[in-house]
Amino acid sequence: MSNQDLLDERKKCTFNIDTLNIIVHENDIKAIELNKLIRKEFENDSILSTPEVHYFLSREEQFKRSIIICSKIIQIKKKFGLLQSAPLDLYRNLCHDYPLMLHDIVFSGALKSLASDEQLQYWLPLAQNYRMFGCYAQTEIAHGSNVQGIETIAHYISSTDEFEIHSPSQSATKWWIGGLGKMATHAIVFAQLYLEGKCYGPHPFMVPIRSLSDHKPLPGIIVGDIGPKYGFNCVDNGFLQLNKIRVPRNFMLQRFAKVTESGKYVRPTHPRLIYAGMVGVRVAIIQDSFYGLSRATTIATRYSVVRRQFILPGENSKNAKESQVLDYQNQMNRILPYIAKSFAYLFTGFRFEKSFKQVLHDIKVNDKVDALSELHANSSGLKSVMTYGTYEGIESCRLACGGHGYSLVSGIPTLLSNYVHVVTAEGENNLLPQQTTRFLLKAFSKIVETEGQVSDLGESIKYLQEEFINDSNQISDIYKFSKTDENGKIDLENPANLLQLFRHRSYFQLKNLSNIIQDLLQIEGNTILSIWGDLNLECIRVSKAHCHFYIIDSFYQHIQSVVNVTNPNEKEIHRVLWQLFNLYSLFLIDQNLMEFTQDGYFKNKDINYLRQEIHKLFKLLRPNAIGLVDSLGISDTALGSAIGQYNGNVYETLLKWAKNQPFNQNPVVDGYNEFLKPILKSYL
Amino acid sequence: MSNQDLLDERKKCTFNIDTLNIIVHENDIKAIELNKLIRKEFENDSILSTPEVHYFLSREEQFKRSIIICSKIIQIKKKFGLLQSAPLDLYRNLCHDYPLMLHDIVFSGALKSLASDEQLQYWLPLAQNYRMFGCYAQTEIAHGSNVQGIETIAHYISSTDEFEIHSPSQSATKWWIGGLGKMATHAIVFAQLYLEGKCYGPHPFMVPIRSLSDHKPLPGIIVGDIGPKYGFNCVDNGFLQLNKIRVPRNFMLQRFAKVTESGKYVRPTHPRLIYAGMVGVRVAIIQDSFYGLSRATTIATRYSVVRRQFILPGENSKNAKESQVLDYQNQMNRILPYIAKSFAYLFTGFRFEKSFKQVLHDIKVNDKVDALSELHANSSGLKSVMTYGTYEGIESCRLACGGHGYSLVSGIPTLLSNYVHVVTAEGENNLLPQQTTRFLLKAFSKIVETEGQVSDLGESIKYLQEEFINDSNQISDIYKFSKTDENGKIDLENPANLLQLFRHRSYFQLKNLSNIIQDLLQIEGNTILSIWGDLNLECIRVSKAHCHFYIIDSFYQHIQSVVNVTNPNEKEIHRVLWQLFNLYSLFLIDQNLMEFTQDGYFKNKDINYLRQEIHKLFKLLRPNAIGLVDSLGISDTALGSAIGQYNGNVYETLLKWAKNQPFNQNPVVDGYNEFLKPILKSYL
Repeated sequence: MSNQDLLDERKKCTFNIDTLNIIVHENDIKAIELNKLIRKEFENDSILSTPEVHYFLSREEQFKRSIIICSKIIQIKKKFGLLQSAPLDLYRNLCHDYPLMLHDIVFSGALKSLASDEQLQYWLPLAQNYRMFGCYAQTEIAHGSNVQGIETIAHYISSTDEFEIHSPSQSATKWWIGGLGKMATHAIVFAQLYLEGKCYGPHPFMVPIRSLSDHKPLPGIIVGDIGPKYGFNCVDNGFLQLNKIRVPRNFMLQRFAKVTESGKYVRPTHPRLIYAGMVGVRVAIIQDSFYGLSRATTIATRYSVVRRQFILPGENSKNAKESQVLDYQNQMNRILPYIAKSFAYLFTGFRFEKSFKQVLHDIKVNDKVDALSELHANSSGLKSVMTYGTYEGIESCRLACGGHGYSLVSGIPTLLSNYVHVVTAEGENNLLPQQTTRFLLKAFSKIVETEGQVSDLGESIKYLQEEFINDSNQISDIYKFSKTDENGKIDLENPANLLQLFRHRSYFQLKNLSNIIQDLLQIEGNTILSIWGDLNLECIRVSKAHCHFYIIDSFYQHIQSVVNVTNPNEKEIHRVLWQLFNLYSLFLIDQNLMEFTQDGYFKNKDINYLRQEIHKLFKLLRPNAIGLVDSLGISDTALGSAIGQYNGNVYETLLKWAKNQPFNQNPVVDGYNEFLKPILKSYL
Repeated sequence: MSNQDLLDERKKCTFNIDTLNIIVHENDIKAIELNKLIRKEFENDSILSTPEVHYFLSREEQFKRSIIICSKIIQIKKKFGLLQSAPLDLYRNLCHDYPLMLHDIVFSGALKSLASDEQLQYWLPLAQNYRMFGCYAQTEIAHGSNVQGIETIAHYISSTDEFEIHSPSQSATKWWIGGLGKMATHAIVFAQLYLEGKCYGPHPFMVPIRSLSDHKPLPGIIVGDIGPKYGFNCVDNGFLQLNKIRVPRNFMLQRFAKVTESGKYVRPTHPRLIYAGMVGVRVAIIQDSFYGLSRATTIATRYSVVRRQFILPGENSKNAKESQVLDYQNQMNRILPYIAKSFAYLFTGFRFEKSFKQVLHDIKVNDKVDALSELHANSSGLKSVMTYGTYEGIESCRLACGGHGYSLVSGIPTLLSNYVHVVTAEGENNLLPQQTTRFLLKAFSKIVETEGQVSDLGESIKYLQEEFINDSNQISDIYKFSKTDENGKIDLENPANLLQLFRHRSYFQLKNLSNIIQDLLQIEGNTILSIWGDLNLECIRVSKAHCHFYIIDSFYQHIQSVVNVTNPNEKEIHRVLWQLFNLYSLFLIDQNLMEFTQDGYFKNKDINYLRQEIHKLFKLLRPNAIGLVDSLGISDTALGSAIGQYNGNVYETLLKWAKNQPFNQNPVVDGYNEFLKPILKSYL
């Protein structure tokens, strides 16, 4: 039995939900079919179908349950022949609490990018068939972003043709390593490579950690779990101290640098290629942002049509039911822009993955590595903007669920706290933008030097040159750039105008920073190196502006390309997607308004008008809200939510889960006789 | 042994830390002495001094530990004669995990404001001596902010002179009630009062819940814990279903309305007085915001002088240690504005509490209730702005701690997730501003109608009238209002100029909303009721602008009043406090820049200059960062942090706590033989 309000909402939807679901899956019908089969396996399994159980367990019990889940998921992978490459949906849309995810993605990914082909032949089948569990041990307790500063050392011992790997101090302890605490049998350990006393910087080594016969730590290894975390407690992040551990020379992973038997160092030919692996992880993070947002918006939207509160002012209050909370402007503001953002991030993920594959192809086939720096710069900025943006969206949805959003069983707090590690991990979000901005500044100088005649600008930054030319031609505000009506009002319902606002804003922020730098360099004794430290915050601003354009542009391009508008069914989807595009664009402009008005490109007098347009879109999109989140196709087993299930039975489920929890099985609380009774009876 | 970096920082501090600590405690030397004594009790107790143990326990174990803590704290209260009124420092600065806090503050507070004097004589001693444990049962599973809509009913049965209290449906289940799940013996239940079939709206009733002899739920009572939450898991938020429970007539709490023996309803004389109790809770919330911020900034600042990473560009890298992360602009930006905000919120709390006491005094002594609506309006807006502001600050500090900020043992995730419930509870943060804005709009109309001649405006909104007069005299930008230098540059180091920017911004936002409303009312058929729902977001903006002024103004006034500048020691503190004032003001302007420039009062051309001033203040305040957080006087037992302790032994403590946790006591994880071994050995 489904909740009636939710059924009514589904009837109201103006487009075909399945058709939009196919677009969400990039028209990959085969993948959709496979997902359906796997989803059935989940739904029919008593453990995989009850993610809520996790909320009521202790850390140790949670972890044991996660181990059982590992075993079940590996069986499913074997059944469907997915050991070599499982669809990411398995991880993103179905799994909860699967600690081998890091083995599958991070460890195997690192192996593929760091091991030589020969080494891969040996290790990869072991990893893919789970004859070993691996982890990626780079971070140390006292060293994070500064990888060059790690303290762990690896000396080459030529007499035995081995490396001796050692933690020379407490601060060299490997820390945060996902999968190491309880599970891993092997670790890829980063250590400073020493050959005859000379240091060659950090290199990766495969180090056995636990016995393959009884899983006990091997001699000289001190290993354990680092303790409970804000989220992600199904994963055993661990610590590791190595006491002069010996491994054979070919346990150094040598896709790039090599050490010969005589202890000579062989430099990598394309050192920049090391970045490619890192960018690969970022592709996954960028795509994951969509899954974070879509889970949160699904829960919040469903809850907000079931939840009723007050009666909207102006509505007839006589005997009326209270209003659905999604009918309030404030609630729409907390949810609808993030539904729009989900689609923006989804399409951005599609585009970025394509760029990544293209660059890999160019490297492999043509030995062309030029585009790698653009790709790396974009990956840095996008990772920062999109993970912050997802985090903000999940939290907005959590708050939209009021009190129930504070309950773990709503599913959102865990979603949030599991997600938020990525803001810090894999490149700290406030440091990454420096890389993007450095790249953009370089491009900008070239454009200025050549007076707008650079011919080899990357695809994603060509717009900067076009804006430079507009600027030189003094097309300095959006009102000149595009048509306005007789009152001088620009059309904010025209997607092309919105796109143009983002193009110019990015260009202007970059130009502004370039001017700031020029001014600072005028001062005696200043160099770019000496002032760079004072530009951290400007770098964040510039990188964000560029990435916002990248995202908006991806959204724009994708809608244009994807839909067949001669089909009436798809035409309606087309209309709704453009509404989402406009809402997300206007919302983002409003959030960053100062940057659009700073140079007068957009005018202060139109601020109220812009906000009216947002409110208009709220009302246009409101009837399709449920249809939109349903089309994302997130399963109940992934949501683990009492208030966001497909059937909408919010209060019934909240009560059932609460009453059944272990803590409620004893009517009198443990400790009453010993501690509470003496207080109440005033013995105390 | 303390960390050397931290010792060096303390030496650098330019002012006397103890003197500032006295200012933080409003010069209340007696309170400081008492706090010291209580703190000793905590430090000498094996359980109270080890808050970190909490992180490693299951929910059930955590709760049992919390019960033990209750018993210890009650003993301390008895020892120091604090049963009637404990200093709030006990709760704010020392306690972790003390579930009776809600009994002490919320239940006893509600009792005082809802019970008649006669009823109080009976109940209050029982509550203060812990002969009962109480809770406040208003919210239902399907009804939160709309208190008028609750479903629980109380019929008066004249034949027995009793009320029969009943939950007529599942959606009437009381939910979220703090202290109810496992502890409470009594609940103040809000129910719709019915007299001979006529409904008089929600009224409070004292209802016994659990047996005083064996703590079992009484007949007809279904009660339990609602399940794990994002935070606050030491508190047993509960649910309650009442099956026709009878209580004597005088168990209705009747400070306001009464029911006579013959079943007649006696209306309260001053219905608005019911608000006074609610405002009392808000005073506490406003003051608590300081404690949330000061814990977070203390942890982040200490960690950031111990943590080193990279070498600052421009610094000599030859053999140098890595730089302290607090030396980076980006890190200062994440922490220093929140230290400044801590002081701003502290002083705002002082002022607001004084206004509250004054209003209570006026009511009691002079029967004057006029100022109550101003107080209530400010409490709504300030609660919203300051709890959001604290939440943002805690999270900024958490992120400033990088990976370790994701670890529960850093203390910040729990601080954050415990704190954040207040954003939703006691008045939802996005709904409250409507009340503030309604009040401001009313005042604004009066000002406009009288052309700036209202004589009885409340103290906190007089500035609106002054700004109206300035506006009428066309003093329409800060450059006209205050002196500028020969280049037309306004002095952003002058606190009075900053204050003026906030005054005008608030005035302008209010005027802008008033104009929007006038425009909408021009449209045929529109009424203020029919358009109000479309103004939710504008209300938030206007309320926030007013509250920011209130906060900045409180900061300004307090610095002026508090410090004796003839004493050289205090003179230095004075200097530092003004730096904090300037930093917080400029930071807040930068965060809301559009609202300051929207009408040209502050000019776009000065944006870069404003940011330079912020960066200048970062450098000025940097050497005193540790001195400032030390002066807040937060104890290690309150922090529960491996990375923020007074001694600064970050890495040693992280390692010790991790190694000692229960999860690490068995070298092979539970589940290995049954589930992992078959996978690794390929039996599976």
